[in-house]
Amino acid sequence: MTETAHTHTTRADGRATDEIRPVTIQRNWTDAPEGSVLIQCGNTRVLCTATFTEGVPRWRRDSGLGWVTAEYSMLPRATAERTDRESIRGKVGGRTHEISRLIGRVLRGVVDMKALGENQIQIDCDVLQADGGTRTASITGAYVALADAIEWARQKGHVAKDARVLTDQVSAISVGIIHGTPMLDLPYVEDSHAQTDMNVAMTGSGRFIEVQGTAEGAPYSRDELGVLLDLAEKGNRELQALQREALAA
Amino acid sequence: MTETAHTHTTRADGRATDEIRPVTIQRNWTDAPEGSVLIQCGNTRVLCTATFTEGVPRWRRDSGLGWVTAEYSMLPRATAERTDRESIRGKVGGRTHEISRLIGRVLRGVVDMKALGENQIQIDCDVLQADGGTRTASITGAYVALADAIEWARQKGHVAKDARVLTDQVSAISVGIIHGTPMLDLPYVEDSHAQTDMNVAMTGSGRFIEVQGTAEGAPYSRDELGVLLDLAEKGNRELQALQREALAA
Amino acid sequence: MTETAHTHTTRADGRATDEIRPVTIQRNWTDAPEGSVLIQCGNTRVLCTATFTEGVPRWRRDSGLGWVTAEYSMLPRATAERTDRESIRGKVGGRTHEISRLIGRVLRGVVDMKALGENQIQIDCDVLQADGGTRTASITGAYVALADAIEWARQKGHVAKDARVLTDQVSAISVGIIHGTPMLDLPYVEDSHAQTDMNVAMTGSGRFIEVQGTAEGAPYSRDELGVLLDLAEKGNRELQALQREALAA
Amino acid sequence: MTETAHTHTTRADGRATDEIRPVTIQRNWTDAPEGSVLIQCGNTRVLCTATFTEGVPRWRRDSGLGWVTAEYSMLPRATAERTDRESIRGKVGGRTHEISRLIGRVLRGVVDMKALGENQIQIDCDVLQADGGTRTASITGAYVALADAIEWARQKGHVAKDARVLTDQVSAISVGIIHGTPMLDLPYVEDSHAQTDMNVAMTGSGRFIEVQGTAEGAPYSRDELGVLLDLAEKGNRELQALQREALAA
Amino acid sequence: MTETAHTHTTRADGRATDEIRPVTIQRNWTDAPEGSVLIQCGNTRVLCTATFTEGVPRWRRDSGLGWVTAEYSMLPRATAERTDRESIRGKVGGRTHEISRLIGRVLRGVVDMKALGENQIQIDCDVLQADGGTRTASITGAYVALADAIEWARQKGHVAKDARVLTDQVSAISVGIIHGTPMLDLPYVEDSHAQTDMNVAMTGSGRFIEVQGTAEGAPYSRDELGVLLDLAEKGNRELQALQREALAA
Amino acid sequence: MTETAHTHTTRADGRATDEIRPVTIQRNWTDAPEGSVLIQCGNTRVLCTATFTEGVPRWRRDSGLGWVTAEYSMLPRATAERTDRESIRGKVGGRTHEISRLIGRVLRGVVDMKALGENQIQIDCDVLQADGGTRTASITGAYVALADAIEWARQKGHVAKDARVLTDQVSAISVGIIHGTPMLDLPYVEDSHAQTDMNVAMTGSGRFIEVQGTAEGAPYSRDELGVLLDLAEKGNRELQALQREALAA
Repeated sequence: MTETAHTHTTRADGRATDEIRPVTIQRNWTDAPEGSVLIQCGNTRVLCTATFTEGVPRWRRDSGLGWVTAEYSMLPRATAERTDRESIRGKVGGRTHEISRLIGRVLRGVVDMKALGENQIQIDCDVLQADGGTRTASITGAYVALADAIEWARQKGHVAKDARVLTDQVSAISVGIIHGTPMLDLPYVEDSHAQTDMNVAMTGSGRFIEVQGTAEGAPYSRDELGVLLDLAEKGNRELQALQREALAA
Repeated sequence: MTETAHTHTTRADGRATDEIRPVTIQRNWTDAPEGSVLIQCGNTRVLCTATFTEGVPRWRRDSGLGWVTAEYSMLPRATAERTDRESIRGKVGGRTHEISRLIGRVLRGVVDMKALGENQIQIDCDVLQADGGTRTASITGAYVALADAIEWARQKGHVAKDARVLTDQVSAISVGIIHGTPMLDLPYVEDSHAQTDMNVAMTGSGRFIEVQGTAEGAPYSRDELGVLLDLAEKGNRELQALQREALAA
Repeated sequence: MTETAHTHTTRADGRATDEIRPVTIQRNWTDAPEGSVLIQCGNTRVLCTATFTEGVPRWRRDSGLGWVTAEYSMLPRATAERTDRESIRGKVGGRTHEISRLIGRVLRGVVDMKALGENQIQIDCDVLQADGGTRTASITGAYVALADAIEWARQKGHVAKDARVLTDQVSAISVGIIHGTPMLDLPYVEDSHAQTDMNVAMTGSGRFIEVQGTAEGAPYSRDELGVLLDLAEKGNRELQALQREALAA
Repeated sequence: MTETAHTHTTRADGRATDEIRPVTIQRNWTDAPEGSVLIQCGNTRVLCTATFTEGVPRWRRDSGLGWVTAEYSMLPRATAERTDRESIRGKVGGRTHEISRLIGRVLRGVVDMKALGENQIQIDCDVLQADGGTRTASITGAYVALADAIEWARQKGHVAKDARVLTDQVSAISVGIIHGTPMLDLPYVEDSHAQTDMNVAMTGSGRFIEVQGTAEGAPYSRDELGVLLDLAEKGNRELQALQREALAA
Repeated sequence: MTETAHTHTTRADGRATDEIRPVTIQRNWTDAPEGSVLIQCGNTRVLCTATFTEGVPRWRRDSGLGWVTAEYSMLPRATAERTDRESIRGKVGGRTHEISRLIGRVLRGVVDMKALGENQIQIDCDVLQADGGTRTASITGAYVALADAIEWARQKGHVAKDARVLTDQVSAISVGIIHGTPMLDLPYVEDSHAQTDMNVAMTGSGRFIEVQGTAEGAPYSRDELGVLLDLAEKGNRELQALQREALAA
Repeated sequence: MTETAHTHTTRADGRATDEIRPVTIQRNWTDAPEGSVLIQCGNTRVLCTATFTEGVPRWRRDSGLGWVTAEYSMLPRATAERTDRESIRGKVGGRTHEISRLIGRVLRGVVDMKALGENQIQIDCDVLQADGGTRTASITGAYVALADAIEWARQKGHVAKDARVLTDQVSAISVGIIHGTPMLDLPYVEDSHAQTDMNVAMTGSGRFIEVQGTAEGAPYSRDELGVLLDLAEKGNRELQALQREALAA
């Protein structure tokens, strides 16, 4: 698979197979949260907020350690067909649970809980418009909201001035094999045709926090896995540059 | 109560007592819904979407009539303190139910169900940022999303070209008595100090669809009711001008 | 609209348009509650109990203030057709929530929470038979149960002998426009044909605590609103005389 | 244990150990249900309604057989201390479920489902005031409501004129051993001190439909069981006379 | 009904009418629980575990008394047709509740709560395979798990060396009348044809803790009740011998 | 990392770092299900049943395709400390949902839905004893139950004699890095100390269906990922030999 090959594959939106969608990251999109980020990856649009509260849940008390947790949700008409609200159905679906847990785990992977102290940060990722990659966009946006909330806590004196709460940067992106071709950053139309898709959360230092590769269609070989990880690494490096740019603004 | 008097009363945001907050109405804010409106009233920001589907719920079948329903919800961090998701708690709270029912009732008040035919329009009002007046902003924004969805249905041939589905225009605004002074369009800080507050949904023809006046603090007299209705009428007229402007754009 | 006109309009039960249904108020209908009232308005029959408990919910502690709350419910066969129990369905419907909140708000409007002290009164309104106006009958009956519970607390020394816990009297009644004619105290058959209906809770001093006017059918003008409020005032005055009579017995 | 012995035992309410409490059975207590009975056994007061509907649940269709089911519930302040509503808690408790199932089973024991035809009768037993024996009072009252609903169906032609839908009469009563003495018809104060208590549902022909004997405190011997059944038989015979009297009125 | 008669009646599995099914009781079937018993009665197979924890629920604190509680559940494919999980349905059914309560009550009937001290034992009975008599097998197996958990607590010093926590032994078995013949220990095929069935929990000293006789089909006479109790006594004596044997191993 | 190195690392149970735990697979462990397998991996014990039903869920009808779904659950005392039942809590937790979805996905990866035809197979994995690797043991055992259910369907004629419903074999195993050393098949004590753990589901042809690597503790490098996949491949090959052996028995 060469660079030339990529540019010849036709994707519905004209991108090369190893090209990410246009990304914008707006900080302070709403006023109340300690961190509030609207991230847009192609047509996927997610509002990521970070709520800082002093104290930790009961099971964590007197440990000297903080906690970071996340909840993911979709507005009913974020999708082409309206989906019923989980509040109305009275229970949270398996997919929602799974993604919420994933986001929390990944963010905790770059937080030094001791440096955070006995404080809690709750991440909320609400998908306003969904076009594939909502969980990875959530992680990428949530990292920025998390950084803002930690900075807020530092200013307010809830966290020590010199504490290095964030031990690394983190972002995530999807990759997949469509009609035999490995591709980066799948929109909905590609995702639904993927034989295999994989979500990869990677740190700024190039290590993996989470690799989730699923092949409901056709199982993949060790070699294909290698190519997918290469693509994911390239995409994550680009997203991380955009995160740094947003935080520097 | 004279115009002069109003301008002398100090409101936290510098407005006259009979002045509404700055309002912006953005249509087509997301792509998927048949109507999608982001309305901003001061710092209150609500995403109102309208989903058009052919057919009606079972109990309405073979009646020749359509149906319009609404659901209201708040993102967890739309407020100063984070509120738990109703999906996590496993049940929809009383306040949410009440507001959802209100929005649905008011919109149905300007829809000719026969002209709509056996089609359903579902309104979703998701509060992204809350600073008072979320239910009235929802109604005002939802009317525009509803108009767009009906126009979409007309273009697609689901509704007759000449059917007058909307029989009137509708908007809503809050009024209240704060420290003895009647005021228009209360932000959260005023709303929480109101002895009395009232939400008034009014049609373009100046008639009332819904008047909900509550006085947990101090009951109000017939005269005070009159003054509040005057303010609400003024505010609704202004909102309706903005709705027409948005729809003409 | 003159008095003569009223008497000529034919209502199914032969009443004049400004005439309330026969009302009976029985105190101490059951033994356990601190206040227990069976109110009958026409065929609508509601058991209103008031439970006095020392202490207040957690969020209210150390405030020096009391709390009054209410829950409304219907027996499954209070209605012509059986309605499923909300306990079986596993969730409380929007209408039930809304009415419970309304009753609580209205009663709190005549209670001096400081005089009540850190005590709680829980009102339960269970509709045994429904024929329109169940929420207004609930309010009217609950006021009497509330008064009895406060008197009980006074006797037991939970409330100061001279504390004026009730600052005013309160009752509620429905009004509506049926086939163009404003009418007082609607039974089910009228309520279901009303273009507009309004529930009005009024204090003994003639001030409004709650005005809820809904016009799903046809919006109403400012003048019609005036006529409806006149009728509601007449009805409430009569109900309040009956409440005083019952409490004096 | 002789009759003399009984009269010497002191019960709080002065009854002999083999004496039932005063019972009143009022038919047509509310208007809407096909059967509506207010039964009072001592201070226990239960509203039993029977709802007749044509057709049966899906799993019963095309069987030619009818169905009878029951739901039991307590008003929150039927008891000395207020109990939370099961609708609010979002689930029906084990005790409620158990009693509902018991009532349904017992009534089905005297119904010829073939004679009933494909029709359903739903029994609702709502305890307005609880002072022990609520489940047995429910059964005794529900039988009368059931008889009225069947008669109503006969009048309306839903059931054949000569169909013998009820194959027998049924009532129920509690018995128990308190401080070593077997007693009939336990009020709450006795029930809570019983070492053993038993609920016995008996037909008019003197056969048992349900015997539920529980000894959380002290297990009972075969002889004690015999004495308890004797008492239950006496009580049930008296209740059945009162049922017949009520139905003849 | 003579012994000879019994042996001539043909049961599907060839047993005499007064014969129990083959029973095996395996202790320590899993490692973690303080008591863990796999009981097999014919094809019915139940895993009964006993969890010992120091301390009691809040309502029981500072009473000096312990507590024993039980939960019963069925694996979805314990039955011929798969039944949906109650965790998925979001609520526990009435039958499950009823059986859980029964098991708890019966076991508490042989426990001296004072001797247990402020400790709690939770019994879990999970039916792995169901062929009738699951509730009685649960009781019989749970008694052995309970005895093991108490012995464990004694070894660990949570319960006094000489405390007689178990005041008696207990087992349970079903009996019923099938086609007019009283039979002992009904498998599913017989249970579903029983006119009457009864579950009898009996202590080692031959006293009853629970007698639950239900006759949905045909009510039973006092004489039939006597015969059923004779059979139950015989069966329980045999089960108790097997329990003692298992505990001695 | 050499083979020699492995054998020198001390694991609590004495295994080499690349050695799987002892595995037993018992088919037909219960009678009712079409496939019923008790799998034991070390101390982890899971009952996997497969229920075959003709027809598919509504959304799948008239597609000509079958469906395979899975539910995972743990008995309350499968673990060292008792965990509350999800049926009692009224909702299924995120972890349970996630694992159920994983098992279903993996099995569907080796099923040709067209060859299965419009039939459904429901897999239930109930953990009787948990000591790490419950989800991977579930997959490995469920594959055998699935194969048995398909064979049953073939015998009964629900599936064509020559249809190749299973396109491949599948098993799963966990790997992780503990104190810097990559290890195969983690029991609970190791799993809870893992910096990184990964579950790998692999087909008989050596391709991946699911790779889930999580590093809450310390992110892992591309090289470490390689070593972990090597170990997983070795373990899965051994499990697959045992599956084939069991199915051949």
